[in-house]
Amino acid sequence: MDIGANFDGKSTFFRVWAPYHKEVFLVLYKDGERKVIKMELEDEERGYFSVEVDNAKAGDMYTYMIGGKEYPDPASRFQPEGVQGKSQIVGNFSWDDDNWKGIDFPIIYELHVGAFGGDFEGVKRKMDYLKELGITAIELMPVHQFAGNRNWGYDGVLLYAVQNSYGGPQKLKELVNEAHKKGIGVILDVVYNHVGPEGNYLSVFGPYFSTRYKTPWGPIFNFDEAYSDEVRHYVVQNAVYWIKEYHIDGLRLDAVHSIFDNSPKHILEEIRDAVKEANPKALLIAESDLNDPRIILPKDKCGYCIDAQWSDDFHHSLHALLTGERDSYYADFGEITKLAKAIKDAFVYDGVYSRFRKKTHGRPVGNLPSNKFVVYAQNHDQVGNRKDGKRLISLVREKALIAPFLYILSPYIPMIFMGEEYGETNPFLFFTDFSDPEIIKGLREGRKRELGEYYYDPQDYSTFEKSKLSWKVDEKILSLYKELIRLRKELFNDFSRDVDIRIEDNKCIIIKRKEKYLVIACFGETYLDIKAKSIITTDGMPSSLPGKVNVGAGVYEEL
Amino acid sequence: MDIGANFDGKSTFFRVWAPYHKEVFLVLYKDGERKVIKMELEDEERGYFSVEVDNAKAGDMYTYMIGGKEYPDPASRFQPEGVQGKSQIVGNFSWDDDNWKGIDFPIIYELHVGAFGGDFEGVKRKMDYLKELGITAIELMPVHQFAGNRNWGYDGVLLYAVQNSYGGPQKLKELVNEAHKKGIGVILDVVYNHVGPEGNYLSVFGPYFSTRYKTPWGPIFNFDEAYSDEVRHYVVQNAVYWIKEYHIDGLRLDAVHSIFDNSPKHILEEIRDAVKEANPKALLIAESDLNDPRIILPKDKCGYCIDAQWSDDFHHSLHALLTGERDSYYADFGEITKLAKAIKDAFVYDGVYSRFRKKTHGRPVGNLPSNKFVVYAQNHDQVGNRKDGKRLISLVREKALIAPFLYILSPYIPMIFMGEEYGETNPFLFFTDFSDPEIIKGLREGRKRELGEYYYDPQDYSTFEKSKLSWKVDEKILSLYKELIRLRKELFNDFSRDVDIRIEDNKCIIIKRKEKYLVIACFGETYLDIKAKSIITTDGMPSSLPGKVNVGAGVYEEL
Repeated sequence: MDIGANFDGKSTFFRVWAPYHKEVFLVLYKDGERKVIKMELEDEERGYFSVEVDNAKAGDMYTYMIGGKEYPDPASRFQPEGVQGKSQIVGNFSWDDDNWKGIDFPIIYELHVGAFGGDFEGVKRKMDYLKELGITAIELMPVHQFAGNRNWGYDGVLLYAVQNSYGGPQKLKELVNEAHKKGIGVILDVVYNHVGPEGNYLSVFGPYFSTRYKTPWGPIFNFDEAYSDEVRHYVVQNAVYWIKEYHIDGLRLDAVHSIFDNSPKHILEEIRDAVKEANPKALLIAESDLNDPRIILPKDKCGYCIDAQWSDDFHHSLHALLTGERDSYYADFGEITKLAKAIKDAFVYDGVYSRFRKKTHGRPVGNLPSNKFVVYAQNHDQVGNRKDGKRLISLVREKALIAPFLYILSPYIPMIFMGEEYGETNPFLFFTDFSDPEIIKGLREGRKRELGEYYYDPQDYSTFEKSKLSWKVDEKILSLYKELIRLRKELFNDFSRDVDIRIEDNKCIIIKRKEKYLVIACFGETYLDIKAKSIITTDGMPSSLPGKVNVGAGVYEEL
Repeated sequence: MDIGANFDGKSTFFRVWAPYHKEVFLVLYKDGERKVIKMELEDEERGYFSVEVDNAKAGDMYTYMIGGKEYPDPASRFQPEGVQGKSQIVGNFSWDDDNWKGIDFPIIYELHVGAFGGDFEGVKRKMDYLKELGITAIELMPVHQFAGNRNWGYDGVLLYAVQNSYGGPQKLKELVNEAHKKGIGVILDVVYNHVGPEGNYLSVFGPYFSTRYKTPWGPIFNFDEAYSDEVRHYVVQNAVYWIKEYHIDGLRLDAVHSIFDNSPKHILEEIRDAVKEANPKALLIAESDLNDPRIILPKDKCGYCIDAQWSDDFHHSLHALLTGERDSYYADFGEITKLAKAIKDAFVYDGVYSRFRKKTHGRPVGNLPSNKFVVYAQNHDQVGNRKDGKRLISLVREKALIAPFLYILSPYIPMIFMGEEYGETNPFLFFTDFSDPEIIKGLREGRKRELGEYYYDPQDYSTFEKSKLSWKVDEKILSLYKELIRLRKELFNDFSRDVDIRIEDNKCIIIKRKEKYLVIACFGETYLDIKAKSIITTDGMPSSLPGKVNVGAGVYEEL
């Protein structure tokens, strides 16, 4: 890295961008002493200060002093004392994952480090379980250092620092190393659209934030105004940093619809180019609410060429159909035809009017391969942003088991939300651990307005406790997931969108794959006049067809 | 039009978008009477109200009443009493321009209606003069109804209403009709990035404005949030309206860099599609500060496919070189090599760092034809936004005559700023005629901060008076312009970018065209070892080469 504190085994090179200032000091804490060292302004134009310190080594602590006050390094790798504390110089790691060749066939498992395993060590201990489940990559919710010990991760304020309460850089590297040795890839959720409210001192250093664009979640990065080259570099290099320094296999880019950039070369395209240069196999997956094909289109079509994006339309059409819910964005969904369209075209809203959005939404995605989309029946947002934080199984019981047939065996990249695979019934709630009384007050008031009678206190430790996985495994469900993952790998091991979908009696969706396999999902009782024998079914589906079907799903081989 | 007051010869159909409201009334002023008529809500979802009134006819006045208060129609065609007054129903016009086939070879003349001719009638009276000059299209600064009698036009608040002090719809149609009969096209400057500060009641009707994006000039249209379909329609239909109802031949889209739209189909692309559907020959010219090829790239390259954009980089490199000025954005220019790059590549800043902007700017435009760019040595902004409002000739005297050689004979679309062609020395200042004391106070204070010792009062009538053309014609200069325009049409009558450019002795730029013609511009004394005879030159350039050249320019035929 060309910013931060870079220890080469002997000395440490410190570099920080502070274009607002004439003077920046490094304050080094070493062997019980505090040493103030003046940094050199490299070049007025770009505003970088740097200094090389001979005896500064891994484990030493430091801050930058500006106007007499000390702040953590904007590119700090580790904040052992939290967002308000000193930064620490990080040493090298002995990697042991040479045999790992990257994710070949992504079957993703999204997890929150704290709620899944407590910390990185806890996640590492579950690696055999995950291997047996059959997933090929875990996706960690963000680990950028945030205020306190627990948080979904989207309130991170130091992009380069690995959350101290999870175990910091060393433990994350150990986790990735172990995953790779087990043949599992690691995708990291990264937040480049805003920073959290507590512990953000970036503005002290320079114009990191946009003066043009607003979001409700906090200040957003300045990608297109004066000084944006350096802000872009801060973000682009961060993406590369995870790939290179942590051997991360892919990045999930949070809420790219809230990244505003009017530059001729969009920041997403720049991130993509830099990441692919660092590792051509690294995956970039965007969360996008825009239904805009440009995100994933190839370069020769002026796209940003991101590898894949989350398919909320698939989720919403499935969820609305299973639960009957029609509030909020589910107002736009509910018909079985929309689910069929989501499976066929990826975007349901591809240039048609959305009642929920009160505007025309999206644009057709055209003929892209199906590994351009990630599908799921649940994820942290779709569970955790519910007022009740309930999982699908708590809402619809055994009907929930239709979901994995549809998304794990769809042509797209499937993603499981932690615990779903064994029938976890603990909710996933919104939890935080801020210290600033103003922020806490604002947060609680906001949540009260939003949740009404469902209100719970996000700051309360018990909220986090309730959200942790219980690990009360329903073996029947777990076996089903394992079997579906096995089938996805063995029978449906490609990303062709050449699938034949039809709706029967407005009750069943029948997806024909590989000319003879049928994935059948039924949302009501009817009779199917198809000649087939089952490979795997939920209760309610017969082992051979033709026959009466119930609410349920199955994989069949056509005869 | 499907909004506004549409008179078909017998009755008038009124339609207005007011999604915030349960009730909207039409107030019709007719034969000395005031009649209040309840409008019908067509459909809750989209929020349009309409009513057909049998005896309402052209010339009758009306308002819309909401919550007991009367407002002008957001789609008013005419405001005879100004922005605060009633709207008027407009009748049909008998067009007489059937023989006009559109602009074939644009040579543009930018003019401000008030400063050029007082009003539309005054502009019409100059049509023979313009015809003789040889230009093929006039470009009118904006005529959207603004507050008061004088304004550059960028403070318009009613997109569809033609400025009353210029003569309103009837006189604009007469002007266009006359221009077409003389073989001159009419391009209209339209402002879709913001509306002016006084007389803007659009927010009473609905969510016309963005809650996400900010500009310093006033509220900007909501092109991508809830209800944006209807706002987009308001703007897109406006573009079509000028083409269809006023026979306008092209639109100059003001400051598209301040149009923010995160939708998959950008509003510029939507405007373009609608305008081309209305008239495939209609031209769309963007003012863009982004150096972003996407604006003008073809659709298959994901561009918005706007026909052309203004080339500020050409202007700035020429101006900085001629004047030696290096303040503000001229800091990025001054070298003769940059002027050569502007002629060769259009964008000088095409992905390189700009000191003025403190960021990397632009992206290479690649291999587009030269009619994708409009070049000029002056325009309303480049003259009027100077603290002194001075024209080039007042700054550098006869050196100013180098400019037309370079831009009129460049491969690009040339644009003359009114008066330049005959050596006008009156300045072009910023003038307004607001009534609101708060707005006037804010404006004056802002200008004082900006202009310092150069301060003048934009509200003072004399400021406008000083900016009017004197029509004191320097016949020598006028002849030169006529001759250069003639040469552009006769010798250089295409838009090929296949030109050979070289720099001699760091003093002269030599542009070879059509294999034997040389356009030579010299910014210092030197000796040119080229065998050529002159076709036309400024003083200081010899009639044949090789020879000593001075500061000046000439067109030569190589021998």
